[in-house]
Amino acid sequence: MKSFTKPTLIIDKDKSINNIRNIKQKADKNKIKLRPHFKTHQSLEIGSWYKNLGINKITVSSVSMAKFFSDEWDDILIAFPINILEIETLNNFSNKCNLSLLVDNFFSIEYLNKKLFKNVNIYIKIDVGYSRAGIQYTDLDYIDSIIKLCSFSNHLTFKGFVSHFGNTYNSKNEKDIVKKFKSSITKIEKLREKYKNYEFSIGDTPSSSLINTYPSFITEIRPGNFIFYDLFQHLIGSCKIEDIALRMICPVVSIYKERNEILIYGGSVHFSKDSFHKDDKQFYGYVYNYENLWNEKNRVGILKSLSQEHGIVKVENIQNFRIGDLVSIIPVHSCLTVDKMQDFFIEENKYSIMD
Amino acid sequence: MKSFTKPTLIIDKDKSINNIRNIKQKADKNKIKLRPHFKTHQSLEIGSWYKNLGINKITVSSVSMAKFFSDEWDDILIAFPINILEIETLNNFSNKCNLSLLVDNFFSIEYLNKKLFKNVNIYIKIDVGYSRAGIQYTDLDYIDSIIKLCSFSNHLTFKGFVSHFGNTYNSKNEKDIVKKFKSSITKIEKLREKYKNYEFSIGDTPSSSLINTYPSFITEIRPGNFIFYDLFQHLIGSCKIEDIALRMICPVVSIYKERNEILIYGGSVHFSKDSFHKDDKQFYGYVYNYENLWNEKNRVGILKSLSQEHGIVKVENIQNFRIGDLVSIIPVHSCLTVDKMQDFFIEENKYSIMD
Repeated sequence: MKSFTKPTLIIDKDKSINNIRNIKQKADKNKIKLRPHFKTHQSLEIGSWYKNLGINKITVSSVSMAKFFSDEWDDILIAFPINILEIETLNNFSNKCNLSLLVDNFFSIEYLNKKLFKNVNIYIKIDVGYSRAGIQYTDLDYIDSIIKLCSFSNHLTFKGFVSHFGNTYNSKNEKDIVKKFKSSITKIEKLREKYKNYEFSIGDTPSSSLINTYPSFITEIRPGNFIFYDLFQHLIGSCKIEDIALRMICPVVSIYKERNEILIYGGSVHFSKDSFHKDDKQFYGYVYNYENLWNEKNRVGILKSLSQEHGIVKVENIQNFRIGDLVSIIPVHSCLTVDKMQDFFIEENKYSIMD
Repeated sequence: MKSFTKPTLIIDKDKSINNIRNIKQKADKNKIKLRPHFKTHQSLEIGSWYKNLGINKITVSSVSMAKFFSDEWDDILIAFPINILEIETLNNFSNKCNLSLLVDNFFSIEYLNKKLFKNVNIYIKIDVGYSRAGIQYTDLDYIDSIIKLCSFSNHLTFKGFVSHFGNTYNSKNEKDIVKKFKSSITKIEKLREKYKNYEFSIGDTPSSSLINTYPSFITEIRPGNFIFYDLFQHLIGSCKIEDIALRMICPVVSIYKERNEILIYGGSVHFSKDSFHKDDKQFYGYVYNYENLWNEKNRVGILKSLSQEHGIVKVENIQNFRIGDLVSIIPVHSCLTVDKMQDFFIEENKYSIMD
């Protein structure tokens, strides 16, 4: 095994491809498109794994990310209410790329109609109860006004509706995820009663991982995190722990026998700061020996706190650690860890995410 | 004013220099060294502001950061228990640089004695109650063993003790900070009774900002955050809000009148995820109009939640916002925001932090 000397992110290609394949098979069975969210990995190399499995449409979360991936992808949805200040970048976007934009207000669609000079697809972002972004699913007059404007526009083609079931992330277990999925679907069904000939794109990793049969009007799913999963997904029931396809490798720099804790070189500048709360405890990762890198059965500690470069691990048996050891950690949130680390290893090879 | 189109970090040079000058004057008055922590800004440009004020010793938090700054600085303390896995980088370190290392265990000092081939200064990291890193201040025999080993070594020169009063960060107000400072000082004084001819380096932004008179045996302070401060420091009483020298500028992408909230382009990949809890509320920043960029009196909202690229701002008067506006935000934690953003603007000029 490669001997790392600093906090390092490693990714297991086989596990990742297996995770993609599982979701892809479900999408195929249901005859819906899989348009994976690329904010999780932000990498051309990892993007190619999707391509090899026959996936040709992607989701991104910013205009910059769309620009980055447009070198290799020609069907991109920016799943974030469009930032009209980036109109110049949009106007300079390659015409080879079939670009889809999200709107959730009339002001932005009017702006795009006047200031955008290229053909794009328009999707309306629908809020089904998460209260982050989107038009309320009951606000049919407002939705109509946007569709109508698109129908008069030369370059804006209204395609359908996009929603994100973010409330599945507040689940405690599999049953809970499925219940939240069904409750959100009921709301979208109300929309569908009126808007029959449009696309309905949904998608979040928890429900995409557990739902086997979709209502037939759902045309697309857009999960992202599922390629790697993480401790959060495992603890709410989205995946088995052995499905988690990435690890942080960190050096042990000190050992505190009196408090059964070790200090690792690895802090919030490496892991970000997302934590998980369970049984009145807050933690940032599960810790394993480096020798048992992908063996999730032999957990040796819990990452209990993070400051800028310090991580404190509460361990089960302090005698098993030596200064200069490496430990392997399953982080709580893989998307933010990848974004923080910028670089990752797949076996002996180093890759970087977008700038 | 420059018209930004994406989340952008801007830094006020005058405020920053004023913040440096204030702490430098106190250090000078007390005849102690100011060895500022450069993890906050990670920038050669900003480092030069310190240099211009006569500061020539710096603190960093990793071997990589020491390497980066050794191009321009020749007296560097790595204030993190040394990671012995980076011995090769240390051995290749420029001899022009006066390098100081931190140890908090016998294993590492023995390792340095055998495997390091250059002269370095050694400081012992002392734990005065924060329980993150360090040898207990009462563990005199253990401390003695390290000093003794250094005394026999050809290249390890024991210089003194370093501690970080991290518990001042858990303060509620100025009085609390001062109380925690005094309690930590009492513990170091016990050490000082035995070790009279050594250096005593302390330093955290809350106490460095409020303490005017240091005990005479304190030889050095090492705060970092004080150059910019942030909302956290302001809310625990370290600084006035007008001292905060950095802002995040973010586009308004949507407006939700029914819930008095706006959606900004700016999320945890820009701000990191540190929050502040007050009156049962959790928040990530204070929000201002871009037109009143540095006027902290006219707050218009609170950054109440962050996901990867989304920020939700609860606003006072929703009528005052238009899609395409920019807002200015004081983040909770400046060090992590700088680390996340990688680039920042000072007036019209763009700078980058270390890779």
